[in-house]
Amino acid sequence: MHIIDIITKKRDGYELSKEEIEYLIQSYTKGNIPDYQISAFLMATYFNQMTEQEATHLALAMRDSGDSIDLSAIKGIKVDKHSTGGVGDKVTLVLGPLLAALGAKVAKMSGRGLGHTGGTIDKLESIPGYQVELSVQDFIKQVQDIGIAVVGQSGDVAPADKKFYALRDVTATVDCIPLIASSIMSKKLASGADAICLDVKVGHGAFMKTEEEAVQLAELMVSIGQLAGKKVTAILTGMDEPLGHKIGNALEVYEAIETLQGQGPDDLVEVTLAIGSQLLMDANLAKSDKEAREMMNKALNDGSAYDKFIELVAAQGGDIEVIKHKEKLLSDNKVEVLSQEEGYITEMNALDIGKAAMRLGAGRETKEDKILLDVGIDLHKKIGDFVKKGDVLATFYVQDKGIEEAKTLLLDAITIGNQKKSITLIKRKIS
Amino acid sequence: MHIIDIITKKRDGYELSKEEIEYLIQSYTKGNIPDYQISAFLMATYFNQMTEQEATHLALAMRDSGDSIDLSAIKGIKVDKHSTGGVGDKVTLVLGPLLAALGAKVAKMSGRGLGHTGGTIDKLESIPGYQVELSVQDFIKQVQDIGIAVVGQSGDVAPADKKFYALRDVTATVDCIPLIASSIMSKKLASGADAICLDVKVGHGAFMKTEEEAVQLAELMVSIGQLAGKKVTAILTGMDEPLGHKIGNALEVYEAIETLQGQGPDDLVEVTLAIGSQLLMDANLAKSDKEAREMMNKALNDGSAYDKFIELVAAQGGDIEVIKHKEKLLSDNKVEVLSQEEGYITEMNALDIGKAAMRLGAGRETKEDKILLDVGIDLHKKIGDFVKKGDVLATFYVQDKGIEEAKTLLLDAITIGNQKKSITLIKRKIS
Repeated sequence: MHIIDIITKKRDGYELSKEEIEYLIQSYTKGNIPDYQISAFLMATYFNQMTEQEATHLALAMRDSGDSIDLSAIKGIKVDKHSTGGVGDKVTLVLGPLLAALGAKVAKMSGRGLGHTGGTIDKLESIPGYQVELSVQDFIKQVQDIGIAVVGQSGDVAPADKKFYALRDVTATVDCIPLIASSIMSKKLASGADAICLDVKVGHGAFMKTEEEAVQLAELMVSIGQLAGKKVTAILTGMDEPLGHKIGNALEVYEAIETLQGQGPDDLVEVTLAIGSQLLMDANLAKSDKEAREMMNKALNDGSAYDKFIELVAAQGGDIEVIKHKEKLLSDNKVEVLSQEEGYITEMNALDIGKAAMRLGAGRETKEDKILLDVGIDLHKKIGDFVKKGDVLATFYVQDKGIEEAKTLLLDAITIGNQKKSITLIKRKIS
Repeated sequence: MHIIDIITKKRDGYELSKEEIEYLIQSYTKGNIPDYQISAFLMATYFNQMTEQEATHLALAMRDSGDSIDLSAIKGIKVDKHSTGGVGDKVTLVLGPLLAALGAKVAKMSGRGLGHTGGTIDKLESIPGYQVELSVQDFIKQVQDIGIAVVGQSGDVAPADKKFYALRDVTATVDCIPLIASSIMSKKLASGADAICLDVKVGHGAFMKTEEEAVQLAELMVSIGQLAGKKVTAILTGMDEPLGHKIGNALEVYEAIETLQGQGPDDLVEVTLAIGSQLLMDANLAKSDKEAREMMNKALNDGSAYDKFIELVAAQGGDIEVIKHKEKLLSDNKVEVLSQEEGYITEMNALDIGKAAMRLGAGRETKEDKILLDVGIDLHKKIGDFVKKGDVLATFYVQDKGIEEAKTLLLDAITIGNQKKSITLIKRKIS
């Protein structure tokens, strides 16, 4: 097999075989194919796309380029979720303990944030003492013991994907649905779960700006997962405004705790229940959506989901006192941002609000940047709310950076009009 | 300026500016842009093509990446021709001396052959003693003295094109008309001629297989040349069968000598006169096509073109005795290939006949291969000729390699049918 024939075939719009894709990925991972040939291949793929079969072969070949976690020692159906990334998305922090409280096995590996989107691991690190690194043995044992562990990615997971992604990032080949789908799925399929629900975000603040491309991505990822023999479903959820009210690492833990205590904002609860219902049914823990929702509402209101979160934090070395006194998580320095107009909030650009939080120090622009865990934004108003001039739109939790810039970004991100507007949060389910 | 923005712009189908193209070429030549970004750019260009302006900026930027020859010391209009490469194409060997004999200034830099196409410099090296390397001063002085010099490329001509081409060759981005056009024109524009006639070959044995793509390439090269302020024209000529009867380095010199003595094959003479007429008019040496052709026919028949060739060979140190006794140029070992059928020759795949000559040793597959100068093929029959079973189709001049393979290739390349067929050699002129 010759890489130049594979590039030519893709360039000319033919479907690549499993063997060709495996050859490409294996040789590239070993360093036997130079970057300049792979980047030509990636650009040809950008133009000619991939079939479901090709994307599946690619995802599996990338998965097999590194370590996969074997969760077979854990009894029962292991569940997992993945979000394509949004602003204020703390669903994992709520859903993990909630599902574990209801008997599901949650062996979760999460990532860090980059750009305007946060990462679960950064959020958990705002809890003093929380250890995001566990050995595979300890990880599995903790899931066996308490039903849940949430850690950073360990081992050498999908190194081919890392090489691919680094190259795509500098060759204008990131925005390519089959490459995005196989990248995500290569890592998800390495994580060992049996049932996976993908939360595909769509809107201003998401990677997918239109519902059409979000559906394409979701359908392709579901197909890849199913062709790989896993139970994979997807839910399209809106990212027209941030999810919940709080953005920033500790702030999101704070809001997750509120939600686990039955006091969560409607939109966050809605997304959590939609994904949770799917996974409870996939794990054979609920027979219907109705039953699943009843179980989850009960666990959020009777303290069992919250108790499971306390158990998780304690098991991973975190200080449960700050969970019990959650105001300790946040910076003492606050700045209020007031409305300069009167009317209904009709738009709230999630991307720009994410950037505002980043300016305050909550996010990193490059992988090397340090972040401030206790800063961020608490939105007092969301789309559809009425505001008067002088009303508090948001409270910034700050240290000493980016305040004015963040204020300008936030005010520019909010559009105020005459008509009350409502948005649809759960747009579609794909299975 | 950022290379990733330039790749994205090309990927998304926008036109690049002069500044962007210059930045790309200059930075790449200096090694400040890695191959993997350029190969993504090349593949995006493969899909989205380039406008005339972009291709011109690219050709000029590549020209300016290295040395250009300044021919201003030579009085008069300097003429040049370029062939996109064919089988048996020895037009330069005839046309150069012919034009010089008629007062044109021919300062010609030629290339070596690769694959099934020959190169003028290899052909001239089959004349013992002929020096293909001259200093720029000696090159210019010889043109001043005798009106012609034919040398290999000297100096560092268009190094950006060399880097581009090497990368295209391994990334499946060779077959891209704007990249081909700017590659050719970057070198032609560096060669210092005022009037250039491009012989764009079309057919089996040519790089352009269809007239449509040959026209595209020719029109684009003419536009680039004209936008760069040169008098550039193009002639589309057929490469459905080899040009002339002889293929192989010394064999082609042999046939060129025959032609310079007024004994050339019709097709070779036809192409030579078509290009020559254009250049004589461009050089203000003839007022009309009719006048130009009369001048050329006279020079071919009165010995003046032949004498100029002798003068050229002598000036560059070649042995003129072998020109005067041209059979000395050829291998003594001959093999005849006989027809196994009776009928009219209807097809003669030039590509495969070029490959047959290559198998005998006349051509190189990689730049490093050594070639045998005295081997090749003398075709006794061409398209439209009638052959009987047992008639000699061709004589192979051989050493000790590739004879059987070449025979099979030749026989398979020739189709014999019932109907006499004629082909059009000069397909179109573009100016």
